[in-house]
Amino acid sequence: MKQKYRGHDYDVIVVGAGHAGSEAALAAARMGNKTLVLTINLDMVAFMPCNPSVGGPAKGTVVREVDALGGEMGRNIDKTYVQMRMLNTGKGPAVQALRAQADKHAYHAEMKHTMENEPNLTLRQGIVDSLIVEDGVCKGVVTNTGAKYYAKAVVIAAGTAARGKIIIGELMYASGPNNSQPAEKLSGNLEELGFDLERFKTGTPPRVDGTTIDYSKTEEQPGDQKPHHFSFESADKDYLAVKDQLSCWLTYTNETTHKIIRDNLDRAPMFTGVIEGVGPRYCPSIEDKIVRFADKPRHQLFLEPEGRKTEEWYVDGLSTSMPEEVQQKMLHTISGLENAEMMRPGYAIEYDVVAPYQLKPTLETKVVKNLFTAGQTNGTSGYEEAAGQGIMAGINAGRRALGKGPFVLKRNEAYIGVMIDDLVTKGTKEPYRLLTSRAEYRLLLRTDNADMRLTEKGHEIGLISDDRYAKFLAKKKAIESEIDRLNNIRIKPSKAVDEFVEAHGDKPLKDGVIAAVFLRRPYVDYQALMQFIPAPDQPLDRHVIEQVEIQTKYAGYIAKAEASVEKMKRMEEKKIPNQTDYDAIDGIATEARQKLQKIHPETLAQATRISGVNPADIAILSVYIQQGKIAKLKKSV
Amino acid sequence: MKQKYRGHDYDVIVVGAGHAGSEAALAAARMGNKTLVLTINLDMVAFMPCNPSVGGPAKGTVVREVDALGGEMGRNIDKTYVQMRMLNTGKGPAVQALRAQADKHAYHAEMKHTMENEPNLTLRQGIVDSLIVEDGVCKGVVTNTGAKYYAKAVVIAAGTAARGKIIIGELMYASGPNNSQPAEKLSGNLEELGFDLERFKTGTPPRVDGTTIDYSKTEEQPGDQKPHHFSFESADKDYLAVKDQLSCWLTYTNETTHKIIRDNLDRAPMFTGVIEGVGPRYCPSIEDKIVRFADKPRHQLFLEPEGRKTEEWYVDGLSTSMPEEVQQKMLHTISGLENAEMMRPGYAIEYDVVAPYQLKPTLETKVVKNLFTAGQTNGTSGYEEAAGQGIMAGINAGRRALGKGPFVLKRNEAYIGVMIDDLVTKGTKEPYRLLTSRAEYRLLLRTDNADMRLTEKGHEIGLISDDRYAKFLAKKKAIESEIDRLNNIRIKPSKAVDEFVEAHGDKPLKDGVIAAVFLRRPYVDYQALMQFIPAPDQPLDRHVIEQVEIQTKYAGYIAKAEASVEKMKRMEEKKIPNQTDYDAIDGIATEARQKLQKIHPETLAQATRISGVNPADIAILSVYIQQGKIAKLKKSV
Ligand SMILES: Cc1cc2nc3c(=O)[nH]c(=O)nc-3n(C[C@H](O)[C@H](O)[C@H](O)COP(=O)(O)OP(=O)(O)OC[C@H]3O[C@@H](n4cnc5c(N)ncnc54)[C@H](O)[C@@H]3O)c2cc1C
Ligand SMILES: Cc1cc2nc3c(=O)[nH]c(=O)nc-3n(C[C@H](O)[C@H](O)[C@H](O)COP(=O)(O)OP(=O)(O)OC[C@H]3O[C@@H](n4cnc5c(N)ncnc54)[C@H](O)[C@@H]3O)c2cc1C
Repeated sequence: MKQKYRGHDYDVIVVGAGHAGSEAALAAARMGNKTLVLTINLDMVAFMPCNPSVGGPAKGTVVREVDALGGEMGRNIDKTYVQMRMLNTGKGPAVQALRAQADKHAYHAEMKHTMENEPNLTLRQGIVDSLIVEDGVCKGVVTNTGAKYYAKAVVIAAGTAARGKIIIGELMYASGPNNSQPAEKLSGNLEELGFDLERFKTGTPPRVDGTTIDYSKTEEQPGDQKPHHFSFESADKDYLAVKDQLSCWLTYTNETTHKIIRDNLDRAPMFTGVIEGVGPRYCPSIEDKIVRFADKPRHQLFLEPEGRKTEEWYVDGLSTSMPEEVQQKMLHTISGLENAEMMRPGYAIEYDVVAPYQLKPTLETKVVKNLFTAGQTNGTSGYEEAAGQGIMAGINAGRRALGKGPFVLKRNEAYIGVMIDDLVTKGTKEPYRLLTSRAEYRLLLRTDNADMRLTEKGHEIGLISDDRYAKFLAKKKAIESEIDRLNNIRIKPSKAVDEFVEAHGDKPLKDGVIAAVFLRRPYVDYQALMQFIPAPDQPLDRHVIEQVEIQTKYAGYIAKAEASVEKMKRMEEKKIPNQTDYDAIDGIATEARQKLQKIHPETLAQATRISGVNPADIAILSVYIQQGKIAKLKKSV
Repeated sequence: MKQKYRGHDYDVIVVGAGHAGSEAALAAARMGNKTLVLTINLDMVAFMPCNPSVGGPAKGTVVREVDALGGEMGRNIDKTYVQMRMLNTGKGPAVQALRAQADKHAYHAEMKHTMENEPNLTLRQGIVDSLIVEDGVCKGVVTNTGAKYYAKAVVIAAGTAARGKIIIGELMYASGPNNSQPAEKLSGNLEELGFDLERFKTGTPPRVDGTTIDYSKTEEQPGDQKPHHFSFESADKDYLAVKDQLSCWLTYTNETTHKIIRDNLDRAPMFTGVIEGVGPRYCPSIEDKIVRFADKPRHQLFLEPEGRKTEEWYVDGLSTSMPEEVQQKMLHTISGLENAEMMRPGYAIEYDVVAPYQLKPTLETKVVKNLFTAGQTNGTSGYEEAAGQGIMAGINAGRRALGKGPFVLKRNEAYIGVMIDDLVTKGTKEPYRLLTSRAEYRLLLRTDNADMRLTEKGHEIGLISDDRYAKFLAKKKAIESEIDRLNNIRIKPSKAVDEFVEAHGDKPLKDGVIAAVFLRRPYVDYQALMQFIPAPDQPLDRHVIEQVEIQTKYAGYIAKAEASVEKMKRMEEKKIPNQTDYDAIDGIATEARQKLQKIHPETLAQATRISGVNPADIAILSVYIQQGKIAKLKKSV
């Protein structure tokens, strides 16, 4: 029998130092909470078990949002990237997306070092076996060594370690990611506490030895010359020259690759029933892609370096749990990889998930008070999704410990808001990944304006310093006054202007035109505009200019989006009391009634987003709320 | 059922990329063998699960020997140390010992990178479950994914992962070092093949957060200003300035610490019977030290940094498997650690060992042909011991694959020779560690002359390049000609000489004196000598001067040691045939007979070193050999 003993008392305890746990712990600690992080292996803090990269569509925006709230992911990748690229630069600002290749080890080491140096934070290796719950309230955790740690709030961010099982072909064994110790006991404890767990799976491709790749048969993908950063605090002078960045390389699968896969489908755990967990629709294995898109003659593969000090390369796009020998054969059919030595086989991993309909929008569980969950544990997939939830869970756990109210982001405020609302409202039947298509206000939730949207909130919460906040206000002011100025200057017809517009195939000006209106023309940018009007009093930095351009050019669309937000806001204001008994409301359809009873939406707006709840049901609900009848429908608790 | 499939064919396969496996694989590959390394986790290549340091008495000399043979450990630590210190500088050259603190992660990453870039070497993640053995000959290995790899020779260097179990107080679970996957199956296969396995244990201390240490209550131990290197190839210009090195800090346990341990001995797995494995006598746990040296009022502890990019500190001297809470209490009694946050608890680990009497001096097993074992697997403890065996096993496996004969180092040639001879001759009942006291020719096996002893051999084997060998020969020649010159120059009495010797309390010269003889005076060093005789034609580098000094000053002792070596050599030349049936020799005592039957020494000298074999037995054996009778005692096989 292990003896139980009392460890220290904390304000907040975070279980797991992955991408969610790191953000949660740093946020809680920086808000002034004595915070303990317990994690299975300190050498895997903020470890990337899959792709060595951060960002991309929607995900990159989340990183910027985390940064604007005072989180760490943006700063951390800015210190450890080996390549930076803005995707979709030819398209509008709503779909531009920043993506970086990370030095995988440096990313981990940097995050761990930051946590080690955070005054209120204690980082400790340990496996949490169970929670201490009294009268439905979480009071702390018990580790495998018998230590009991107490806290005012607990965040679980256990990732894929929760009863993890690795699968490669016919082989299956208990393991966390990358052959680490799994967490075998916590899941069972959650089940005992009444949680509904689901079983998901994800996968990773093989890694190959870069000294055996023939790069000449692939296309080079170098980094960007023009500086970009994830953190709003990073400076252009620190941006790496292209020559100091590492390239990725593009290649493709082909019919031979596909044939090998098809010939071995009877040994693919995805299809033989070995894998019970549900896999990610938007990040499928190659065998999945071959089966689902049977007539696609080839699939893109990106060869990505795992770091500066290693020859390991990640074969992005080739995630697989086929038997090892089949993986080898597949690799050797690919252009550039004919002689590639596989260093690690790809594998799938199955793990437990807390079905997220059991969560409030603060990420506190409805089942156990003062218990929060974040990241892969909540059914998402991806480092950025994890970090976005992590900071929110950390903030809310920290505020709970400080006796403060909840902090929730709305769907129009952040991708983080979209994601959490999706999770707690709709739940998810497969690993949830952020996509731009999930957001109804994409034009508002841009990568470029995350600071505009969230710095103020970060400051209020106490995660953005006064100094940074002052800089932000100055930037905001500079943007506003420049836009104001452009709306009050007229460009008069002149030879120079005529030549310019005609060169772009446009007709000469008849009358004068407001500078802001002129800037809206597709071929006019701020720099061009400055040829025809006086420069501002102070030279503006590139970030200010970027906002002036975007806010001017897209003013019409932005206004429209904001109007629709207003409409939603009114629905959001219609609160539904917590213990509403939907059985007592006449006229609601059975499916809607069941879903409402399960999810217990907090607002009418949230109710509209539940699948199976129809406009007719909403109308009835709305009436009940307006007439104040609903308050009387509270169940006796 | 996992399907078995044929992977590639290799010349040499190495199981495990720890300190032994890395050297074995690099040696075999560099000798021209197509070499495969299979290891459980590529992120743990040359991983240091215990102290972040390399070297020290005897161990440091092994590193220099590995380097002189063309191995990697010396170069690797020279690229990744954070502190370098020569120990015992006040004492004679036989006990001086170089010791470095390593950046633990950098050490691993550098070694992995070197292996990745080695043309003949394939590094692959995988767990070996069994060997392919046909008619007593090892033909290859089978991994957990069902892959069969074939080779002409196989080296097992499985370290503490072999059926590893971690123990912390009342907690015990299957694990390799540092919460990695253990190797559960290979041990059972070895038992089936007829190997006799033993169960050993080792332990590691807790790690603490350096930001919570009060260094002012400890004594600083800075690095050396004077340059030192492990590799004979490293240049002084690359030596780190003291300001760029990290310090260690010295503190002590005290009576309060000891009381806490004594009060909790009933919970110490070392004493409650939980730990079955035999622990290391020379690297004991703190609870062991408290019990065995009950009246020592305090024990030294060194606080050592784990790297440049981490705040984790290693508490050297406090190895323990006490319950976690007891560890915490212990730490807080120690000066400087009163408020230290423990980041990882110490733990003990139990693992399987191949009893080394089953090995030949080449490290090939007697049980299975073409199978070699090295490192912790053979019952040793320590990175350097592992590396020393690793390179020898790699060389011998490589030579077997190339059809060449065995390569063995004698006890007078290297600490490596002492260690392997001890292991295969005496076996070991506890984790074996190299100590200077194990060597009978300590004055010959110095840290400074490892290149003189072994470079030639390294070159013959093919691991030392012609270029490096030429440099070595030039150095050797410079030493010889300077010693020659000093033996042929006379210092005549003069005012300067008289003043010098009198200043050191000596009497003025009466007659002239040979320079070499003068140099033997304790207060004379080479630099002082140069005041009285002309400088050599070419200025000599410091390594040459060092050898000239040592070889001159200790000439008498060295000659004596060499004479005794000659005597042993004659015994070594008396070979004992392999299948000798000792039961057929009259007059040998029963214990000696049993031991001889078990170990089957290859030479008379080896027989003398077997404990329980007495001079009388040796005399009888010697007569049998001299009379040629022994050859007739071969058992029919
Ligand atoms: C093989 C693999 C492939 C993947 N492929 C993809 C992909 O293709 N695309 C994609 O977007 N995402 C992928 N992911 C997911 C991505 O890694 C995760 O989404 C991300 O790491 C989640 O972060 P997290 O913080 O939620 O969990 P993790 O990063 O897994 O961190 C969880 C942490 O909690 C610790 N922990 C768990 N249980 C306990 C306990 N009981 N006590 C103490 N500590 C505990 C763990 O040790 C770990 O440090 C993959 C993951 C794996 C393992
Ligand atoms: C907790 C701990 C404390 C220690 N304390 C001390 C100490 O105080 N003093 C001291 O001198 N030494 C100590 N050591 C020992 C030191 O770490 C080892 O002596 C040294 O690492 C041995 O090197 P090796 O190459 O033999 O084994 P390792 O470094 O353990 O390497 C073995 C490698 O083999 C791999 N492997 C094992 N089985 C398989 C398989 N079936 N298939 C594929 N790969 C396999 C492993 O994954 C690992 O990479 C300690 C070790 C541990 C774990």
